[in-house]
Parts: sequence; C-alpha cells; structure tokens
Amino acid sequence: MRHICTLMTDFGEVDPYVGSMKGVLLSQAPGVQLVDLSHQIPPQDVQRGSLFWGDCVSWFPAGTVHLGVVDPGVGTGRKVCVAEGNGQILVCPDNGLLTDWWMASEEPRAFEVTREDLRLADVSSTFHGRDIFSPIAAALASGRIRPEECGPGISPILLNRPSWENTDLGVRGHVLLVDHFGNCVMNIPGHVFSPGTQLIINKTFTVPRVKTYGDASAGDVVILEGSTGLLEVAVAQGSASTQLGIVAGDEVMIELI
Amino acid sequence: MRHICTLMTDFGEVDPYVGSMKGVLLSQAPGVQLVDLSHQIPPQDVQRGSLFWGDCVSWFPAGTVHLGVVDPGVGTGRKVCVAEGNGQILVCPDNGLLTDWWMASEEPRAFEVTREDLRLADVSSTFHGRDIFSPIAAALASGRIRPEECGPGISPILLNRPSWENTDLGVRGHVLLVDHFGNCVMNIPGHVFSPGTQLIINKTFTVPRVKTYGDASAGDVVILEGSTGLLEVAVAQGSASTQLGIVAGDEVMIELI
Amino acid sequence: MRHICTLMTDFGEVDPYVGSMKGVLLSQAPGVQLVDLSHQIPPQDVQRGSLFWGDCVSWFPAGTVHLGVVDPGVGTGRKVCVAEGNGQILVCPDNGLLTDWWMASEEPRAFEVTREDLRLADVSSTFHGRDIFSPIAAALASGRIRPEECGPGISPILLNRPSWENTDLGVRGHVLLVDHFGNCVMNIPGHVFSPGTQLIINKTFTVPRVKTYGDASAGDVVILEGSTGLLEVAVAQGSASTQLGIVAGDEVMIELI
Repeated sequence: MRHICTLMTDFGEVDPYVGSMKGVLLSQAPGVQLVDLSHQIPPQDVQRGSLFWGDCVSWFPAGTVHLGVVDPGVGTGRKVCVAEGNGQILVCPDNGLLTDWWMASEEPRAFEVTREDLRLADVSSTFHGRDIFSPIAAALASGRIRPEECGPGISPILLNRPSWENTDLGVRGHVLLVDHFGNCVMNIPGHVFSPGTQLIINKTFTVPRVKTYGDASAGDVVILEGSTGLLEVAVAQGSASTQLGIVAGDEVMIELI
Repeated sequence: MRHICTLMTDFGEVDPYVGSMKGVLLSQAPGVQLVDLSHQIPPQDVQRGSLFWGDCVSWFPAGTVHLGVVDPGVGTGRKVCVAEGNGQILVCPDNGLLTDWWMASEEPRAFEVTREDLRLADVSSTFHGRDIFSPIAAALASGRIRPEECGPGISPILLNRPSWENTDLGVRGHVLLVDHFGNCVMNIPGHVFSPGTQLIINKTFTVPRVKTYGDASAGDVVILEGSTGLLEVAVAQGSASTQLGIVAGDEVMIELI
Repeated sequence: MRHICTLMTDFGEVDPYVGSMKGVLLSQAPGVQLVDLSHQIPPQDVQRGSLFWGDCVSWFPAGTVHLGVVDPGVGTGRKVCVAEGNGQILVCPDNGLLTDWWMASEEPRAFEVTREDLRLADVSSTFHGRDIFSPIAAALASGRIRPEECGPGISPILLNRPSWENTDLGVRGHVLLVDHFGNCVMNIPGHVFSPGTQLIINKTFTVPRVKTYGDASAGDVVILEGSTGLLEVAVAQGSASTQLGIVAGDEVMIELI
C-alpha cells in the first residue's frame, strides 16, 4: 500500500507555494500519494483550518499523514508540532490548528519537533511549509521516523471554543463558519431542536427545523442538522448568509415557538 | 494498474466536503488513484455538470469510475444511479447529471442503487456524497461489485436540451455556458458556418468566423469551433461574455452576411 | 517508482479542459502520477506562468515531466517545445513560458516537437493542451521517447526581464507579481537591503526591512526577503497591494534612510 499525505493550506493556487511543497514531499518520500484537501482556507484563519481538519481527518485510512500550513507566526518562536491519535498523524505549526481534531480524538499525543536534521539544508525565514513542515511530513509518511522520535511531548495550543447555552430568551450560540453554499453552521448540536418544530432566529426570522435541504422549496430559510452533527441555517438553492445577513463569528439566539 | 476514480462536485474547496469524500474513497478502495476533475461546478447547476462530464469522461482509460455530486435533491426521494457505457462507469444522483455523456454513448445502461450494504453505517440527511456515493464509487473502483449488481436497471432522468434551428432570420441557438475565459459556447455545431465567412450576432455584432483564437488580434470578437465541436463567441485575450453582454441560457440569432 | 507529471495551466477549474488533459495523460501513460501545480495562472499571463515554474520546478525529483499550458497563440504558428535541464523535463508552447526556469538551469536544452505521431489522431484548432501537449507529456513521462527524439534543437523564446538598478534616487525595480496574500514581490534580491534598516518606498511609505512576517504587528507594512530570495512588500495579516496601491508591473523606487 502506498503512503498517503494530505495537504491543507491557506496558500491559494495562483502562487508556486503548494507546488514547491509537493515537490519536496515527492523528493523526500518517493511514491507518496498526495491528496489535496484544500488550499483555500481563508488567509491566516487558523480557526477555520481547525474546523476543517476536525471534520475531515478521521475519514482517512489509519497511518495517513496530514500536513497543515496556516501559519501567521512563520519565522517567530512558535513551535513545530507533530500529533498522533486515532491512527492519524498531523504536522502543523503549534498555533491551535489541530484544536477540533484534538478535542474529538481519544488520547491524542503531541510532540514538538526539535530535531533539525529533518529540515531542508537552507531554511528561509518566510516559507516553513516548504523548508520545515514538508520534510517532516515526508519523513513521517515514508516511515523513516515515528512521531515520538521528533522531539519532546507537549501540550499543544488549543483555541478557545465558545460554547452554546440555554438562556431565558432561548438557545444562545455562535456561527462557526459560512460554507461554500452560504449555509451558516452554528456551534449548537442537532439534538437541541427536533425536526418538525418552528424556531425564531434573532427575534426576526421564523423558520422550520427540517431534516434535509430537500424539505424546503427554493428560497425558503430552514434550520437543519448538517453532516457534522451541528445545526445550520440554510436557504434552499440560495445563500442563508446573504439572505439573513449572518457572518462567521456572529452570536445567534434561537427560540422554540 | 491502479484503479482510477475521478471527482466532480459543486462543493468548492473552502469546506471539508471533498476531503471527507476522498478519505472515504481511500479507506474503502485502498490504493485507488483519485483525480480531481472539478469542485467548481456552480452550486446546484446540474446542467453545467452534465456538459462538463459530456466533454471530459470519454478521454479516460476504460474502467475509470467517475463520481459526480451536484445534488440539490439530497435527502429527498431522488434515486442513486450507477451508469456504464463505452468502458466508463458513472456514479451520481439520478437528476440528469449524466445527460450529455449518456446521449454521446453507445448503448449505455443505468441502474438504481438499491442495495443498502454499500453505504456507510450512519447516513446523514445532508451529505450523501460522503455517506452513500463515495462508498459505492469505492466498491466499483476496487472491483468488489459490478454496476449491474447495484440494483435494477432504470431509464435515468435526462435533461431537456434545446436544439438549434434554421429560421428565416438566421440560425437560432442558445448559449450553453460561458467558460473561464469568457468564451460563450453555443449549441450550434461548428460545421453550420464555415471559416472565412462573416456573421452577424443578434443583429448587432458583425464578426468573422475564424479557425482559431490566434487568428484574431487582441480585443477582436470572433466566432470559431471550440474543442468540443460547437461554435463559440470569443474575444482574443478578453471576455466575450463581458464585451457582448451574453450569459449562459441566452438565445442567440446568427446570420450569414 | 511511478512516473510523475505535473500540470500548470490558466484553464481554471470550472471547465472540462484540465479534466480532459488528465484523461489523455492517464490513457497514454498508464500509472502516471498526476500532480496539480496550478490551474489559476491568470488567463494568457505567460510571464506569471514563467515565474511560477521558475520557483517550483526544481523541487521535484529528477525525471519529473512538467506540462505547462498558457497558450494565447494556440492554433497559430508558435512552436511546441520540450526542454530538459537539471533532471527536469518541461513541455509547453514556445512562447517564453520556460524563461525563469531556463535562466536558473545549468546547460538546459530545448527541442521543437516536429514529430506528428505524438499527437492525437484528430487535432482541434483550439485545444492543443489536450490534443498535442498531453500526448507528448505522456510519451515522455512513460519513457517511450526522450526529449531529443522529439525534434531539432532550438533556442527557445525567452521573455525580457527588466533588471533592477542603483540610481541617485535609490534602488529602482519592478513589481514582478502580487501573490495570494497581497505581498508585492519585486525583482530586487534580498541582499540589497539588510534587515534592521529603514526604507522609503516611492517617496511615500517609510517601512522597516525585517527578517520575517512575524516581526511585524498586524497591519504594519514591512519589506522582507521572500522564499525565493527576492524582496517583497508585505502587510502583516493584510494586503500590501491593496494598502499601498501597488500592482504587478509597477516601477518602485526604494531609498535607504
């Protein structure tokens, strides 16, 4: 079986950054199977990258190496991190990028990469994705090193996650992200409101809690449980974010009628 | 030889949807070669997805599995479809996504997937790309099942295709799509007007029918036969759609001078 | 070891052009490992494609075939080119696309592809990426031909590169490109100004020359040496291009205080 290395970055595709990383990976881990997850994480948006990995990593076969570079602190003292759990191996800056995956894993472990023999001979100040992270991922993917051989164990930096709560006025939560379709994913689990009920969002929009997108006519606003178990506001064949004026980070208040 | 599975979706790249599908495919069809066709089909645009597959599928080696998810009816009663023809295997919702490929294939066959053992253990209401379509594609790509073993034969849903026609006023057709370069591809075959002639579009623009983009100077509007045998309006090093105000779905009338 | 073929185009991802090329490559070079570099080179921007390849190609293992299609002259008399140097093999239109790679390579060689048996049976006038370039890349990647067997040696077309210069008013250079993050990369080597100095850009902006992005607070304008050895103007967690109104091609004048 070939080894797999996935890539998730905020580098976009117009520049040679991702291509250079792929070249280093293929040079240092011959035969590795590269899998693009995304290069469209919004620039420097560590939280969005963490949510992405949290939804995505666990679907891969055991032994997959996941390389993530969303790295606003490149060139400063932030640590280089390798983590392992549930059969997956993650390589990233220690800035919270692994938060959602970490919180969903059983007994994950993390290590600071202190060995310098795993880097390219010349390390730039601005592109550690190519010069430091890719060689480490290649060494892990090809089986030349194990995570615990990279350096001492650490407690990785984890992002704060605002929790949802029951209040006198309803359920208060936050919009975690707006996806490609304009769906507004909130930090409220699907079981909090049952399908078939009517809800009021932000004291303004009365919407049905449905089971799936197809339960609504084009243009209708609905709330449903998305594929990761969280409630989301959606507009059938439209953008809930645009139609309701909701963006990532907004607080939302949801009442049961 | 490794098995190949291509992916075409309208999921974009900012969300973990495509990555999760790739994880399921690699987990259930170890060693499969994944090939991204596009994740930028416009949201819910089944017609655009059908045109895409119609141009693209036949170039692949026999035995390739093509997984297509443009699925506005997810979670409703729409069928799950596997089709086979000219050596290619397609997996998609039965909503017309395979229309253009079907019409160009010799004796294609389609089957409704009724077997439930091909799904993930837990099927969400909103993400059948991951929970239903990917496991089926993995089973087909790895050779564990054949298309006709998925369920009963069906006549798949096919989209209506407006045809072009000769009228007293000229040739009437439609703009099928506007491509990345702003070229307006019409449903009129290239042989209808010969290179070297002069044409009038919509009684407004007089343009030469040329053989290739390089026959025009920068900024010139031309008509030529594109790579799929259809006429397209193009502007050398510019956007015909912007310059002429033509968009997908528009009717066009073309007269020979 | 599997053969590798990378792809760099200006085709975007909404159309079937890239997918069709991948189909031809996999049909004619069974088992080839396809690696997407970018399909987001700005349309017809040969210079940007050349800079991309110049930064990216050398990181790949020896024997990699790089297929580049940014081809405003498709269908005209421009040559089809195969080049070889430093272990890499490049296939592209002879329009300057290999300039930056060529100038950085030791004793590169180029050949015009005159053999017609390497093409598809039917060659369109508009899509040589699929009909001519992909079959050649497949033949090279699978080892069926060597570069020098494609046709006679040529001196490929090379783009003019404006050089930087010392003037009485400071160092005069050009903005080569604005990257995904809004960083403005100039044609001035990093050694021209040392970290720790203060610089004035275009007689307007006083900015520190720093070592890395992390040396600046959010919103600060800085100059630093990027990953390819060239100076760039950057804004920490923001876009220098937007903030300073600088775009690709602009002349810049930089003075040491």
